[in-house]
Amino acid sequence: MNRHRYGLILAGGRGTRFWPRSRKRSAKQVLNVVGERSLIQATVDRLAPLIAPERLWVLTNDHLRDTIIKQLPEVPRNQILAEPVQRNTAPAIGLAAQILHSLDPDAVMGVFPADHVIGKIPRFRAVVGAAFKAAAGGHLVVIGIQPRWPETGYGYIEFPRGCMAGGAEPLAVRRFHEKPELAKAKRYLKAGNFFWNSGMFFWRADVLLDQLRRHLPRTATVLASLPRFGSRAFSASLKQAFPLCDNISIDYAVLERAGAVRGIAAGDFGWNDVGSWNAVYELLGHDPQGNSIPLESIALDSHNNFVDARGKIVALIGVRNLIVVDTPDALLVAHRDRAQQVGDIVKALEKRNRHDLL
Amino acid sequence: MNRHRYGLILAGGRGTRFWPRSRKRSAKQVLNVVGERSLIQATVDRLAPLIAPERLWVLTNDHLRDTIIKQLPEVPRNQILAEPVQRNTAPAIGLAAQILHSLDPDAVMGVFPADHVIGKIPRFRAVVGAAFKAAAGGHLVVIGIQPRWPETGYGYIEFPRGCMAGGAEPLAVRRFHEKPELAKAKRYLKAGNFFWNSGMFFWRADVLLDQLRRHLPRTATVLASLPRFGSRAFSASLKQAFPLCDNISIDYAVLERAGAVRGIAAGDFGWNDVGSWNAVYELLGHDPQGNSIPLESIALDSHNNFVDARGKIVALIGVRNLIVVDTPDALLVAHRDRAQQVGDIVKALEKRNRHDLL
Repeated sequence: MNRHRYGLILAGGRGTRFWPRSRKRSAKQVLNVVGERSLIQATVDRLAPLIAPERLWVLTNDHLRDTIIKQLPEVPRNQILAEPVQRNTAPAIGLAAQILHSLDPDAVMGVFPADHVIGKIPRFRAVVGAAFKAAAGGHLVVIGIQPRWPETGYGYIEFPRGCMAGGAEPLAVRRFHEKPELAKAKRYLKAGNFFWNSGMFFWRADVLLDQLRRHLPRTATVLASLPRFGSRAFSASLKQAFPLCDNISIDYAVLERAGAVRGIAAGDFGWNDVGSWNAVYELLGHDPQGNSIPLESIALDSHNNFVDARGKIVALIGVRNLIVVDTPDALLVAHRDRAQQVGDIVKALEKRNRHDLL
Repeated sequence: MNRHRYGLILAGGRGTRFWPRSRKRSAKQVLNVVGERSLIQATVDRLAPLIAPERLWVLTNDHLRDTIIKQLPEVPRNQILAEPVQRNTAPAIGLAAQILHSLDPDAVMGVFPADHVIGKIPRFRAVVGAAFKAAAGGHLVVIGIQPRWPETGYGYIEFPRGCMAGGAEPLAVRRFHEKPELAKAKRYLKAGNFFWNSGMFFWRADVLLDQLRRHLPRTATVLASLPRFGSRAFSASLKQAFPLCDNISIDYAVLERAGAVRGIAAGDFGWNDVGSWNAVYELLGHDPQGNSIPLESIALDSHNNFVDARGKIVALIGVRNLIVVDTPDALLVAHRDRAQQVGDIVKALEKRNRHDLL
């Protein structure tokens, strides 16, 4: 393991589409929606051979910090930081780069979302290894996921025409594209050289700070003004300074503007961003009737349903394509095709001031 | 109020089609599935102006007796009896007749299921009044409900051709018919003189005992052998004797064999036997989307659903025609057309020895 390699796990999201299990204090990344370990625990597990836990850093929010500290006892707790206010990814990544660079001028950092699922971990590790290597050479490196359908919810990375998925060598990125309309997404899929932006980034901390100074000077100045990490004044200063950072993603702020970004056009390593309960259904195994339901459930003439209910038995009769999620104070019953609308329930609860359910 | 009038409320059923709310100790008749009062409480309420609670008797089972005693504080608790074993209606009604006759040789009894809903109570009371009057004159009297659809789950009472629904005068009953096949039920509906058997019966206690002696001599003998009600020996004797009674309904045992049964071809008094969760859905009011769901629920593009969930919020997205019933240890999600199959869930639980859920 290279001792200059660091991991930054971004764990600030709310993941409202996993309501009623996801709440402010139990967002998607700390839930065990797939398997026994929470998504952030699984993220740490799969990185372990590449980045020792003591070189992992986590950026989250005040609601989740305590839970994450409990879930990740192997990560030093002073490396699990809460953003004073929610900003987008650029300030969070910039903050981490600032700290890492102050601790290790040769730091190379990998940025990983806390709430993705990776099915084929050895392949994933090979890709991450190659990305780190390219990053150590001074490049900004991104990982593209070969698209499996014309998704309109992701950004796309455009590689050179005729590129092949699965090569470990980083390629020059031609352009980044925002979330496309469906027609455009279909063209991307057909073209073959457009890949989903995985949200994983690799670069030297000093290279990233340099980019920030160039493309996001206010944020760069704010972060540079912070006292040394570990000093008494750090925390209070961060609270004052962080809200002054630009609310912008690293994609917009840096990647789309930087001249020479490299990307790995990754083959299939079972990447899934678990964007909804239906994604969980797709990820989990099904019984012969297509149901993903607790072992004790009783299903009569019921097919292709997903049930998450703990401590109680569930009986289904003559129902299809449902998502049923039960918690002590809230129950969701949705058609699988409408899993994306679960966030609308959270919005409705906000309107009603039902903070007890958020 | 006539002081020789008594009411017998039959409350021994299990009502498994209301699982998971119905359990052995909380069968349909003690549940408040429609409105605030339980079905048996509503039964007592609507009889109150006709039969004072102190002249009401209840036959139930050991699982339910305590609950019923609590729910009906106005009924003397020694008149709330548990059958030692489950028999059908003939022994239960015979037992009550035996007791009532011993207390009041002029007793006229009305028999009422504990778990029906009556929507139009003044009309109901008029019919019951007429039935009591005819019964006091020595007749066996039944109440027929004008059929609203070709139901195959009820028995039918055949009245003389050309009879009119809504007359208060009892008519001679031509015949009783068992639960018919659908084609036959359709003919009954068309014919106009076939009425649903409501399960409500009226007769003098001595007349009924006379009929039992004639048509069900063993049961009559067993019941006649019991010591006086209220004596020390009564309870123990009942326990020994009751299992010896024939396991048969009053319809088969007496009504179909008796020569001269009278019936009231009742008009619409909003009778409903609440045979399933779907019947509850039909009985309750719906919002403009056709949903019958708790006030606080959130329904997005969801129609014609029934939800019974207490102490938690329910969110529906894009679902139709569902029955959702939540309890602390079990959750039911069924298509409304399959409400009759809820009993199959109970059977499946019995097979698995899940007595905790029965």
